[in-house]
Amino acid sequence: MAVSEMEIGKWSVVAGGVVAARGFQVAGVRCGIKRKRRDICLLVCEDGEATAAGVFTTNVVRAPCVDWSESRLAAKGTAKAIVVNAGNANAGNGYPGEHDNTQMAQWAANALRVPVDLILTASTGVIGTPLPMAIIASGITDAADHLGNSPEAATEAAEAILTTDTFTKEYAVRFPLPESGAVVTVGGMSKGSGMIAPNMATMLGFITTDVAMASDALRSALVAATAVSFNCLTVDGDTSTNDSCFLLASGAAGNVAIGDTDSADYQAFADALTHVCIHLAKEIARDGEGATKLVTVRVTGTATTEDARKVAKTIAESPLVKTALFGNDPNWGRILAAAGRAGVRFDPKKATAYLAGTCIFAHGTPTKFDAPAVSKAMAVKELTIHVDLGTGDAEARFYTCDFSYDYVRINAEYHT
Amino acid sequence: MAVSEMEIGKWSVVAGGVVAARGFQVAGVRCGIKRKRRDICLLVCEDGEATAAGVFTTNVVRAPCVDWSESRLAAKGTAKAIVVNAGNANAGNGYPGEHDNTQMAQWAANALRVPVDLILTASTGVIGTPLPMAIIASGITDAADHLGNSPEAATEAAEAILTTDTFTKEYAVRFPLPESGAVVTVGGMSKGSGMIAPNMATMLGFITTDVAMASDALRSALVAATAVSFNCLTVDGDTSTNDSCFLLASGAAGNVAIGDTDSADYQAFADALTHVCIHLAKEIARDGEGATKLVTVRVTGTATTEDARKVAKTIAESPLVKTALFGNDPNWGRILAAAGRAGVRFDPKKATAYLAGTCIFAHGTPTKFDAPAVSKAMAVKELTIHVDLGTGDAEARFYTCDFSYDYVRINAEYHT
Repeated sequence: MAVSEMEIGKWSVVAGGVVAARGFQVAGVRCGIKRKRRDICLLVCEDGEATAAGVFTTNVVRAPCVDWSESRLAAKGTAKAIVVNAGNANAGNGYPGEHDNTQMAQWAANALRVPVDLILTASTGVIGTPLPMAIIASGITDAADHLGNSPEAATEAAEAILTTDTFTKEYAVRFPLPESGAVVTVGGMSKGSGMIAPNMATMLGFITTDVAMASDALRSALVAATAVSFNCLTVDGDTSTNDSCFLLASGAAGNVAIGDTDSADYQAFADALTHVCIHLAKEIARDGEGATKLVTVRVTGTATTEDARKVAKTIAESPLVKTALFGNDPNWGRILAAAGRAGVRFDPKKATAYLAGTCIFAHGTPTKFDAPAVSKAMAVKELTIHVDLGTGDAEARFYTCDFSYDYVRINAEYHT
Repeated sequence: MAVSEMEIGKWSVVAGGVVAARGFQVAGVRCGIKRKRRDICLLVCEDGEATAAGVFTTNVVRAPCVDWSESRLAAKGTAKAIVVNAGNANAGNGYPGEHDNTQMAQWAANALRVPVDLILTASTGVIGTPLPMAIIASGITDAADHLGNSPEAATEAAEAILTTDTFTKEYAVRFPLPESGAVVTVGGMSKGSGMIAPNMATMLGFITTDVAMASDALRSALVAATAVSFNCLTVDGDTSTNDSCFLLASGAAGNVAIGDTDSADYQAFADALTHVCIHLAKEIARDGEGATKLVTVRVTGTATTEDARKVAKTIAESPLVKTALFGNDPNWGRILAAAGRAGVRFDPKKATAYLAGTCIFAHGTPTKFDAPAVSKAMAVKELTIHVDLGTGDAEARFYTCDFSYDYVRINAEYHT
């Protein structure tokens, strides 16, 4: 992300990522879990506790950090800080793993002099290997000594949460609330790159804002935003044991706390949060393992949003569609066949499909499109597949990447 | 398949594939749709009509042959013959495609001098290209002139239904019915190799038997057999516009027609049919595009068969599991994580996983297995992943293959 300010529609894009919003400090340090990169991140609310919400993996195989953070948030709805380590997911480690996670939270609580129940945890990396607790202890102390709110601190933190990602993922926007007039910032960082695997992925998102908002409203906004962003993201269809997305609100913007989810201020905040989450999710797809391009699958013309989502997801996850995207093959047959097996009834004779802007299928049959020209239009870093099923007004988008030789190499050559 | 007889449990494996059962003739000829291989198959019941059943793709994008054959079977439950072409799926061709399919059936009906409603059709190959009707007409005439019931004729027919498959898939077994004592044969042929795609796949199965059986009972047996065979098969999760499996019964075994699905004779037939279908389905997975090994995913210890099926399917379709299999990586984390996202609740602490016979996960954590030894045990043509969830008595199996560089090459380098 460029760090200069620019206007995108109703929002100004600003520098500072996860500390662009007022009231937060962050540090990203290296304790030695990873070979070269920073691997411990501490994100802290400066004054008192932040209102906090989280969404977590639906996988029944869950790491202790997921259980810990979800139950803390359910009990309190506020948090002082999040401690994150990268390089070791602390998953599949049985009861000792649960103990280590609590110990990690306790060390962060000690460093910040707050009760342990105010600390959230996140881990990502190798599964089934015990956390190297001694270096994590010194890493947490080190991070607490280096907290700051500069854009550099934010980028160091964004590096400290990565695993096989090839670049950091940060974004922030600023906008005035339409009713109260207070200027609010929403920003964050994410990591992804592949999926669950013994030395890799997990999707993590950390969003901060200075808006003042009631706990329930904050949670509603996060659930809605993740439903159309991180939950519409697929690199290979595998959810992780550790997937988590957190939202902390400091209240430093000074507005009267928003509680009414029907208010214009709530809607403006929810829109900005959704925009930030979609941006951070797309960055994950762009950085998918072996990815050569970011692909948006847009499905329109269904009876319900859920129908559109199912069809978009099935297309976005199809290995045949993804290998065709890698090969710049305008393969309408694979797209339609994937749509057809999504579990949604439709009449192929009413379906239309567009690839990189060209109509390739209409009225139950392929159009006479210029295949070499469409193939050339596909040889880009970012493109859209649009399928309209012609049966309603609902729509949805999914974000994915192509399937390359490198995907197979990365995932076949690595050994547990 | 070896053509020699051998005993497998209660069945004798016999030569002759789709004409091993008495009462059928078949031909496989080349009319020129494919560059080199035979591409027209005609399978005929010798005397009168066969009792017939079929199961068809659940994809809402269906080729005209699927609609034609399904509605003929629903109306009559009998058939004289099946005409098959390979190299062109006649899908995505709009109304002209429907006309061409009917014309193909009519030509077969003319050659056999029977009403067109007694002819079933199947097509596989390129989507969105009109059928080359002139050569198909001559191909059907040619096939009708070369009908026979030798093992050679069966193998020629098994070749004539292939697309990108690298070998023919035939199998047949013979056994006595326990009650009536009549000796019955069940045999058939299949093709698959990949999935739907503009120049490839589609799963097709053609099974014949000489048993005499009521139409409803025959259909029940086929639905049950496909549920645990062809419907438990995944190469890449993509169903086709043309997937079909047919079962024709000539009645030439001379038994009193089986109508009672609770009878021992019915059960013996259903068991043999299931055995044949599983064999033919496994051959498809073994010949999956780019496959280097056939993998059986066995899931036990669930509350219901449906739960076991869901978990087995999710593991069998996971690109991460499939690339690990290609790389001979004993990656228990990917297997467990795939199980965890299948939509079935279970306690990971009760789960156990075995890879190529070695226990790699138990009590919520990996075992201290010898990774190089397990990796070596994975470097074979055929292996099993067994996951036990420890919560019930139900189980299911899925058949799949690994994901290799060649899978990406075959599917990315081909251009529509």
